[in-house]
Amino acid sequence: MGEKTLWSGGRLSSNIDQVMANLNNSLPIDKRMAAEDILGSLAWAEAIQQAGILSIEELKVIQDGLKQVADEIASGSIQFLPTDEDIHSAVERRLTELVGATGGKLHTGRSRNDQVVTDFRLWVKHNLPVLQDKIRDLQLTLTNRAATEMDCILPGYTHFQQAQPILFSHWFLSHFWPLERDHSRLNNLLNRVDECPLGCGALAGTTLKIDREILAKNLGFSRVSENSLDAVSDRDFVCDFLYAASMIAMHLSRMAEALILYSTLEFGFVTLSDRFSTGSSLMPQKKNPDSLELIRGKASVHLGQMTTMLANLKGLPSAYDKDLQEDKALFFSAFDQLTISLEVMTGVIETLTVNQERCRDAINMMALATDAADYLVDRGMPFREAHHCIGKAVLKAEQLNLPLEALPLTEWQAISPMFDSSIFDVFSLENAIEKRNAIGGTSKQMVRTQLEKAQQLLNRK
Amino acid sequence: MGEKTLWSGGRLSSNIDQVMANLNNSLPIDKRMAAEDILGSLAWAEAIQQAGILSIEELKVIQDGLKQVADEIASGSIQFLPTDEDIHSAVERRLTELVGATGGKLHTGRSRNDQVVTDFRLWVKHNLPVLQDKIRDLQLTLTNRAATEMDCILPGYTHFQQAQPILFSHWFLSHFWPLERDHSRLNNLLNRVDECPLGCGALAGTTLKIDREILAKNLGFSRVSENSLDAVSDRDFVCDFLYAASMIAMHLSRMAEALILYSTLEFGFVTLSDRFSTGSSLMPQKKNPDSLELIRGKASVHLGQMTTMLANLKGLPSAYDKDLQEDKALFFSAFDQLTISLEVMTGVIETLTVNQERCRDAINMMALATDAADYLVDRGMPFREAHHCIGKAVLKAEQLNLPLEALPLTEWQAISPMFDSSIFDVFSLENAIEKRNAIGGTSKQMVRTQLEKAQQLLNRK
Amino acid sequence: MGEKTLWSGGRLSSNIDQVMANLNNSLPIDKRMAAEDILGSLAWAEAIQQAGILSIEELKVIQDGLKQVADEIASGSIQFLPTDEDIHSAVERRLTELVGATGGKLHTGRSRNDQVVTDFRLWVKHNLPVLQDKIRDLQLTLTNRAATEMDCILPGYTHFQQAQPILFSHWFLSHFWPLERDHSRLNNLLNRVDECPLGCGALAGTTLKIDREILAKNLGFSRVSENSLDAVSDRDFVCDFLYAASMIAMHLSRMAEALILYSTLEFGFVTLSDRFSTGSSLMPQKKNPDSLELIRGKASVHLGQMTTMLANLKGLPSAYDKDLQEDKALFFSAFDQLTISLEVMTGVIETLTVNQERCRDAINMMALATDAADYLVDRGMPFREAHHCIGKAVLKAEQLNLPLEALPLTEWQAISPMFDSSIFDVFSLENAIEKRNAIGGTSKQMVRTQLEKAQQLLNRK
Amino acid sequence: MGEKTLWSGGRLSSNIDQVMANLNNSLPIDKRMAAEDILGSLAWAEAIQQAGILSIEELKVIQDGLKQVADEIASGSIQFLPTDEDIHSAVERRLTELVGATGGKLHTGRSRNDQVVTDFRLWVKHNLPVLQDKIRDLQLTLTNRAATEMDCILPGYTHFQQAQPILFSHWFLSHFWPLERDHSRLNNLLNRVDECPLGCGALAGTTLKIDREILAKNLGFSRVSENSLDAVSDRDFVCDFLYAASMIAMHLSRMAEALILYSTLEFGFVTLSDRFSTGSSLMPQKKNPDSLELIRGKASVHLGQMTTMLANLKGLPSAYDKDLQEDKALFFSAFDQLTISLEVMTGVIETLTVNQERCRDAINMMALATDAADYLVDRGMPFREAHHCIGKAVLKAEQLNLPLEALPLTEWQAISPMFDSSIFDVFSLENAIEKRNAIGGTSKQMVRTQLEKAQQLLNRK
Repeated sequence: MGEKTLWSGGRLSSNIDQVMANLNNSLPIDKRMAAEDILGSLAWAEAIQQAGILSIEELKVIQDGLKQVADEIASGSIQFLPTDEDIHSAVERRLTELVGATGGKLHTGRSRNDQVVTDFRLWVKHNLPVLQDKIRDLQLTLTNRAATEMDCILPGYTHFQQAQPILFSHWFLSHFWPLERDHSRLNNLLNRVDECPLGCGALAGTTLKIDREILAKNLGFSRVSENSLDAVSDRDFVCDFLYAASMIAMHLSRMAEALILYSTLEFGFVTLSDRFSTGSSLMPQKKNPDSLELIRGKASVHLGQMTTMLANLKGLPSAYDKDLQEDKALFFSAFDQLTISLEVMTGVIETLTVNQERCRDAINMMALATDAADYLVDRGMPFREAHHCIGKAVLKAEQLNLPLEALPLTEWQAISPMFDSSIFDVFSLENAIEKRNAIGGTSKQMVRTQLEKAQQLLNRK
Repeated sequence: MGEKTLWSGGRLSSNIDQVMANLNNSLPIDKRMAAEDILGSLAWAEAIQQAGILSIEELKVIQDGLKQVADEIASGSIQFLPTDEDIHSAVERRLTELVGATGGKLHTGRSRNDQVVTDFRLWVKHNLPVLQDKIRDLQLTLTNRAATEMDCILPGYTHFQQAQPILFSHWFLSHFWPLERDHSRLNNLLNRVDECPLGCGALAGTTLKIDREILAKNLGFSRVSENSLDAVSDRDFVCDFLYAASMIAMHLSRMAEALILYSTLEFGFVTLSDRFSTGSSLMPQKKNPDSLELIRGKASVHLGQMTTMLANLKGLPSAYDKDLQEDKALFFSAFDQLTISLEVMTGVIETLTVNQERCRDAINMMALATDAADYLVDRGMPFREAHHCIGKAVLKAEQLNLPLEALPLTEWQAISPMFDSSIFDVFSLENAIEKRNAIGGTSKQMVRTQLEKAQQLLNRK
Repeated sequence: MGEKTLWSGGRLSSNIDQVMANLNNSLPIDKRMAAEDILGSLAWAEAIQQAGILSIEELKVIQDGLKQVADEIASGSIQFLPTDEDIHSAVERRLTELVGATGGKLHTGRSRNDQVVTDFRLWVKHNLPVLQDKIRDLQLTLTNRAATEMDCILPGYTHFQQAQPILFSHWFLSHFWPLERDHSRLNNLLNRVDECPLGCGALAGTTLKIDREILAKNLGFSRVSENSLDAVSDRDFVCDFLYAASMIAMHLSRMAEALILYSTLEFGFVTLSDRFSTGSSLMPQKKNPDSLELIRGKASVHLGQMTTMLANLKGLPSAYDKDLQEDKALFFSAFDQLTISLEVMTGVIETLTVNQERCRDAINMMALATDAADYLVDRGMPFREAHHCIGKAVLKAEQLNLPLEALPLTEWQAISPMFDSSIFDVFSLENAIEKRNAIGGTSKQMVRTQLEKAQQLLNRK
Repeated sequence: MGEKTLWSGGRLSSNIDQVMANLNNSLPIDKRMAAEDILGSLAWAEAIQQAGILSIEELKVIQDGLKQVADEIASGSIQFLPTDEDIHSAVERRLTELVGATGGKLHTGRSRNDQVVTDFRLWVKHNLPVLQDKIRDLQLTLTNRAATEMDCILPGYTHFQQAQPILFSHWFLSHFWPLERDHSRLNNLLNRVDECPLGCGALAGTTLKIDREILAKNLGFSRVSENSLDAVSDRDFVCDFLYAASMIAMHLSRMAEALILYSTLEFGFVTLSDRFSTGSSLMPQKKNPDSLELIRGKASVHLGQMTTMLANLKGLPSAYDKDLQEDKALFFSAFDQLTISLEVMTGVIETLTVNQERCRDAINMMALATDAADYLVDRGMPFREAHHCIGKAVLKAEQLNLPLEALPLTEWQAISPMFDSSIFDVFSLENAIEKRNAIGGTSKQMVRTQLEKAQQLLNRK
């Protein structure tokens, strides 16, 4: 029995070509769902006992057998065979070795098509919360840093040109909210995945008298799938995950890009911990932000994986086709990669040093040009004209090779008579920060309010 | 004033290079948001009047001016200028032409960064429900066809090999549920997009005393964005849409693929209407399913657009960068394409003819092999052994070049003594259909139940 | 020494965080280039001996040491350490353990940046021809099948509707030429990869007096790279490969799609060997073309990998960034996958049975409608009018539920008086085949000519 | 006749559904190939005259008619009709209006399948060299800037940390060579596209006695396609172009990223011209590198288009399917976008100011740490140990808050007794540059040699 696949020796000859086996066998990937496969089989055994396929004794035999298989897998003592196409075949094969022909009754009324996707959905339900916790860890770290860097002012950028000063806390929190959206996308997915396909058979439903709603409940699912054809080939939840993963990875890549720049010699706003930096084989002075570069690069890996899954599904006719076998390799790979990226980013943020003085010194007072325009607006000039006037002042200061705040009053007044010496009061970083005091703005008060909301979200978790 | 951009003539010289203008100007794309831009500006004018920037009279002047601009845009009488970088600049420029310098007060405390994304979110809130209606139209058509084809049995496939017979109604409904998931993804997106960024300024918040919650409410938003830096560069909703669009397009491509095959001469299960077919310039006999092929091909277009948006965002530092300008071209293109694909698919499904007799005749009784295995299981044989026995029967029938149902009893009994002449009763399509009677199965009763659930969902809409 | 990375203990502390190590270490991937790393180091040792860095004796010591390391790697006896970041570090570390401080001289004037990409290019030069041979194997199999199926006529399709009859040999050869283009793309790549970056240092060139042209020649390269900055971060050859691989996989997917359809019950043109088919766990009659479905699915994997690499490189500043580390995982994975897909497709083609009679019987004589139009053209009717007339005949035959060739002469003549009884002579498959006798056409003569050209290409190899 | 498609009124009814027409009609895209369509038809008319289908007089009539159609298209006076599915139908329809029924003879023995792809290949042959010239323009600009900035030293980076000093000319040239590879990829494509499919008919070859080699020569093609089935659906050249375009765009994005950073206030190495910068609607001081950001963003657009084309082709069965209709929209869009990006980048490079003094001042002498290690190597210390010693010196300097070159000799000697006061001579930028004097290095001599090679390549063009 050991040298056969589940289906060989009947219509088909026993052996497939070795190169075909290399392409076909998915055991190295799907054995990760072994625990879920056992759970699904235990629930199925109970269901078919109710349906009259198994006697109470046979059910007991199968339950004991499955538990022993589970133990062998958990302990690593199980011997997989070359003919074990996948974990599902391997479990049935081993069960039958252990309990004899009764094991051959387990698959009655079930197909690998509904079995595989049941196992997969169970795995997602069990494991996705672990990934969500990794997101929460990073969010928590961001709020912690926001809480401690409340006195640090740094230049805010658009187009990577200095725009307006902001609090570093505001910057940390600006990366909290994308992760909150990411977390909610995973919640949406958890809701969508929470549907039990077991009892859909190969494509047309099971012929046994199975109460699918009880079966679903026994496995911890909220509901059953409504259409057997759809159920066996629906991989929307895989796409949803690969998309959500791509979004998380994209958000991490943006954080990484900013920190790579902030940790250059030229910016110098932050210093990474040695624990998240590497050196050069050649250049002794080097301290490279490899951690952040690798995280940035992983965004492309996740994007490629999502592209793969959608291109895979495109144009497939209804019901199960073997092309779908890529689904689990993609899912598990994305899951593992993302876990590592989140852990590393959490470590980087926790351990980096913010160079407060350097941040402040880096601000060019031109970044207060909008506040200077407000000065004219306060005196009644239409904003568009004020914008124009300050633009001229900036240009004049550049031509005179002066910082904007050192432009002499005569020059200001040559541009507009509205200026008087109070224009110089505009150039206060603290004032500029505090003036941005509507919800979501960078004033200390608003950042504190924002931080409290963020912390409440984490606590509510 | 007319020959200048909003920002020229101050710090920067008036003219940008012509090739740069070709790359930079987004008016042909973003003028589609003109109505939303006016709405946003009306709300902003009111807000800054409250904040003391405008007098009541100035507010009135601006409101009247904006309404006139809106009329000119709606009637097409507005003259756009080469210096109008985008619809936002064009509106402000035209407003100022109409009402004079007061128009220059409108942009006080606002940036294009928060303005653009406010307009965009408004557009999505206003227009996405139209697309959802197109989905509902297709779902309705599917339920209508399911209701009328309840007596048609066709072969069900896995791996595009005949697997088990199903009702054609079951097949139609198998495409209802993916669209239901698609609809829910758009609902998720509508919830996520429902957040007002106006008042976030360029990146750091506005300096005016604006009550952002009232402002949001006036524009019909449920809530305000929490972090100004995040708000101006968050394009998650664009990604969410391009992803949802890719999923819809992928689902349509799967339906298309099946129907292309079902309408081949060799399958012949359906005949497309001439209204959705085209001919050949050379071959007079040709009637080609171009409608379905084009729909299938569009899945790749949507996939590429999603890939573009995520690759675009990857590695961008915080806050607004001009790379984001691709967002609207992608969004509107996907929106329009998808609308057409949904309309065409609805037309195809409405007008195709199901060839009932041909469907039934196409079924090879081998597709009841599982039922034959059940026959042995009912007599107490473990399923795995039964599977094996029936596999041998199939092989024997093939070797004898006989249909499975014509295999002589002696041959059956040579395989297992459990067979008697009642084995021939297995080969009834109606029985095979009716036996799949658990929820989600293809029995008439279950398909009717399923259809009712689907119809209830549509009515609840 | 063993517990340190190449760079630790100087500027940076010895230990990186464990999660960082998980992300950073590339040894499991790049140890595949061990042989090339040794070759590169042997060549470098010689070069720096010439440059006066090593004495003859030291060179000998290093050469012997490197050979021992090579032996240890080949035999698997080498013990890799957790601090071995990559194969390059591991080799230097082990070398130094074996030969002492002299080993520390090997890296003089070299950087991992030029070392890694030299190893990588060498690996590609050494291994790509093996993949090209797999293409040649498949091409050979296609020509063999073309040679043996010269008498089989099957329907040719466009839009998957029957179009015109063709020879099955013509079909087999239609898949030869795309592979020929694929082969040429790999040749282009082999030419582009044939450039030695060693001696470019970290980014700015080496400070040693190295004759890079001799060094390149010693390693088997045709030329040196012209700009050190470009050389260390140029991964065009990786993109070129991932693109070429995607194209091959796409071509295989198209072949697979056609064969999946041809092997359905409904078409029945070919029967796959059991050695490349699998069965069902539930349905005893099933024989599924999993081999072809898996090949079809792999096209999406290759596409995603190419997308990853280009998204990875997008927006990276000049010179080496750690994001590039994805390059080898992608390359090797694509290389291995493609090898398997090519092997399996070769096996499928070799072992499939062409059902000659079934192919011929499947042809509907409507597929000769163009020939019927030619009949009118021969009698002087403009083609467009002839096309119209035959279209009407096809429609009439459908309405009368008759095969086109059985439409009575009176009906033909009602459409055009040009018809006489010779119209029935048009409906000869052999004639239709033989009339397509311009180069590239499906006539036997032209297919034989085509086959000879294909065989000559293979022999020229 | 005017209200019909080429194929309507025969087998199929005259009208397709309006939504179907919206999806199906490609005239707005493919009319760009009008000139090539006329050329192809002129050549075909001649060929079928030779084959006896047209008399000399009819040929003349058709030639005159086609020329008139060409004139009408060129002048814009042609009236396209809603039933003109594409440019090919429109030309035949208009021809027949002009010359009567003889126009209906033109399509004899030809299909749109071979016609379309012939036109497309012709268009590519005619227009790709224009794009190649744009690449040459940018390369020329890079060599010009390399020639003029030979005295400017700036920091070279890896991982965006200062690594070693380089010449700015070396940096400019580092972007020359990727474009050279891009140019060669387009050459490869031009060679591959240079194959005439005309005479392949719909899929099986033409029934006329056409000398395809003469026909190909008349159209300027080097050779004919070898297999009619392959010829009508081969879109490898479209993929090749979209790939080559993605690579060019990716290379431009890397240049853009570096220049965006170099033009920040913090780096300040270059100043962009106002002609390629834009301002802010809100912030008067802003001068943003929108040109470069848009170019960077376009890399994602090209990547998405390539993804689309390959996902489109994946899994299509042999011969023409309508999914392919996306090919031209993608090709022309990529062609136009890339042209603009190349023009803008050329303008940016031509007009930017290199801030020579700032570049030099920005270099931290730590960037000469490798040279300091060489100092020890020259004194006989193995490199790995020297690397370690200099790492310690860097760390010590940091701890003492001193520039590396200001570390007192006692500190150096505490690390190694090999140091003497000559260590301070190491810290010369000119020396560091000149020492990198192997081919491809950054020494002035080598950069000059490199520049000459680059200029020779451009002249050889």
